[in-house]
Amino acid sequence: MSTSTAPTSVRLAVIPGDGIGPEVVSEGLKVLNAAVGSEVSFETTEYDLGARRWHKNGETLPDSVLAEIRQHDVILLGAIGDPAVPSGVLERGLLLRLRFALDHYVNLRPARLYPGVTSPLAPHVLENGLDFVVVREGTEGPYVGNGGAVRTGTPHEIATEVSINTAFGIERVVRDAFTRAAARPRGHLTLVHKHNVLTHAGHLWRRTVEAVNAEFPEVTTDYLHVDAATIFMVQNPGRFDVIVTDNLFGDIITDIAGAIAGGIGLAASGNINPDRSAAPSMFEPVHGSAPDIAGQQKADPTATVLSVAMLLEHLGLDKAAQKVESAVAEDLVERGDRVRTTSEIGEAIASRL
Amino acid sequence: MSTSTAPTSVRLAVIPGDGIGPEVVSEGLKVLNAAVGSEVSFETTEYDLGARRWHKNGETLPDSVLAEIRQHDVILLGAIGDPAVPSGVLERGLLLRLRFALDHYVNLRPARLYPGVTSPLAPHVLENGLDFVVVREGTEGPYVGNGGAVRTGTPHEIATEVSINTAFGIERVVRDAFTRAAARPRGHLTLVHKHNVLTHAGHLWRRTVEAVNAEFPEVTTDYLHVDAATIFMVQNPGRFDVIVTDNLFGDIITDIAGAIAGGIGLAASGNINPDRSAAPSMFEPVHGSAPDIAGQQKADPTATVLSVAMLLEHLGLDKAAQKVESAVAEDLVERGDRVRTTSEIGEAIASRL
Ligand SMILES: CC(C)[C@H](C(=O)O)[C@@H](O)C(=O)O
Ligand SMILES: CC(C)[C@H](C(=O)O)[C@@H](O)C(=O)O
Repeated sequence: MSTSTAPTSVRLAVIPGDGIGPEVVSEGLKVLNAAVGSEVSFETTEYDLGARRWHKNGETLPDSVLAEIRQHDVILLGAIGDPAVPSGVLERGLLLRLRFALDHYVNLRPARLYPGVTSPLAPHVLENGLDFVVVREGTEGPYVGNGGAVRTGTPHEIATEVSINTAFGIERVVRDAFTRAAARPRGHLTLVHKHNVLTHAGHLWRRTVEAVNAEFPEVTTDYLHVDAATIFMVQNPGRFDVIVTDNLFGDIITDIAGAIAGGIGLAASGNINPDRSAAPSMFEPVHGSAPDIAGQQKADPTATVLSVAMLLEHLGLDKAAQKVESAVAEDLVERGDRVRTTSEIGEAIASRL
Repeated sequence: MSTSTAPTSVRLAVIPGDGIGPEVVSEGLKVLNAAVGSEVSFETTEYDLGARRWHKNGETLPDSVLAEIRQHDVILLGAIGDPAVPSGVLERGLLLRLRFALDHYVNLRPARLYPGVTSPLAPHVLENGLDFVVVREGTEGPYVGNGGAVRTGTPHEIATEVSINTAFGIERVVRDAFTRAAARPRGHLTLVHKHNVLTHAGHLWRRTVEAVNAEFPEVTTDYLHVDAATIFMVQNPGRFDVIVTDNLFGDIITDIAGAIAGGIGLAASGNINPDRSAAPSMFEPVHGSAPDIAGQQKADPTATVLSVAMLLEHLGLDKAAQKVESAVAEDLVERGDRVRTTSEIGEAIASRL
């Protein structure tokens, strides 16, 4: 979904974040620089956001910083989350705030089993391959943060979570998913929801897919309840081409997708606002901050590097994106069981460019 | 969780339901009769509920029928769901209505890889085995059906789903899960939720697990976000012992659990109200009504037969339950790739009793 004119200069906001974030981002930037060479000048601003900042002064994402970030063309994020910060503070205050404020309604998560990579699935279930993409809605559903608790801490506490789903919000992401499906050889779109239980939201999703399908008659569609979708993920992932789903179901199935495609260390993602002039999109590995191995050069930066490829593609720098993906593919074929540091992997990939 | 005195007569309500339901239930009853012999007399009443009844007169579960069912000791259910019935009608009006009205707050779903069964997972991820049980909350959370839609069918439609979570409802199911964990050799309990995003409900779950843990100091605990839990399901399912989780997350992860343990054709479940004098508990295979193969004797009745074993255990008929499980285990070792009809499988199991 790139525009026709590629930029010659790009303002890039970098948020290394917490845990292994800084390590993997540093390799991602190394590869980015090697890939674009002197064709495009990247002007990079780094933002100190995450646990460190919150511990220092209680800030997650000050309005002024958000306003600055908004002036960029694109964002690269490492990982957010720290066990010493109360659960939800950084997630809601920083990561989801960015996704919501910048209207990243397309949370794009490809899953592909690269040659050389070992899947936890047995060979007989991989006969039809594994190459699909999940279009996860990124701005509404159960993630809106509505709800609350009363009588907190008492035996009579009640906590609610309100999922908000709009025709506007669903239609635009469904249309994006159809566009992607139409551009793929198989041209198949699967809606994943749970419309037999979450009937209000589910029926809206279903009606919307039916309606938008009329604009894309060449795309075939089907529907799976989320529970059934997870079964297919482990029994026949080759059945999937493009999946469209809500924010929470998308969160869950993209982690399974990453796992069956060889591990979350390889899973890239884009938080995309398809209107490049409206707001910068944000690219990040699907994995978390993994505090247990932070700073030890044990993290695999490949997911970040593949996120950089998605970032380049989003900017219209298709050739550079393609080069990065090929370099990763080559590295994956050769890596075998070798244990390498985070930097060694980043350098090995960069050296192929 | 059986009481000390086993009954000599049992009133059993049978709801064959839709699709493959009648076929698999009929084998389940065959095995049940063979297992209990003349020790216990089962008085069985069959209820015609499901798509056929709804098509005939629009009824899902009349109050009078619910009242009758309530007079039984235990319920065996086949499967509910039919593509010709609007989505949600039978699920909400019949299946969930039974679970809610009879206060089946423990939705118990064991996952075990039986010898002879092929998992879709590669051998290297099964090194630590696969033998855990999911305690899924069954009466609240995102399943309550609260919410609605406004401006339905217009471009300005908004649909909400409200998840309701109570300290009362969570504490009782968490205590049940701790009790089960304490009775198992490993004694480990994992809470699965998404408390960094669904903070209101998630924090209540977390605080409740911490509080109840004080009553079970011998049980070790940990926490996984639902997305991370699905990764472990495919990368190292042996890490799980007992899982406790909410209604929706439990729906999803028990389908993955069934799939990795050799397929949903083997996955049994109990909708349990631990107070046997309060209401009958209901046992059912995890799989759906599979309308595409209904009436063709292609369905595997094993999940229903294992649900019968859970039913017997719930009644305190531990010996009969054990016999059924052993008969299934033996059949699984020997079945290999042979294709057998639904009845042939049921008879093969029954003949071992
Ligand atoms: C950290 C968390 C808020 C986030 C999410 O749930 O979206 C993560 O799991 C992801 O998938 O990017
Ligand atoms: C049929 C459906 C309502 C049900 C559920 O979601 O609970 C089923 O998927 C299950 O797991 O028993």
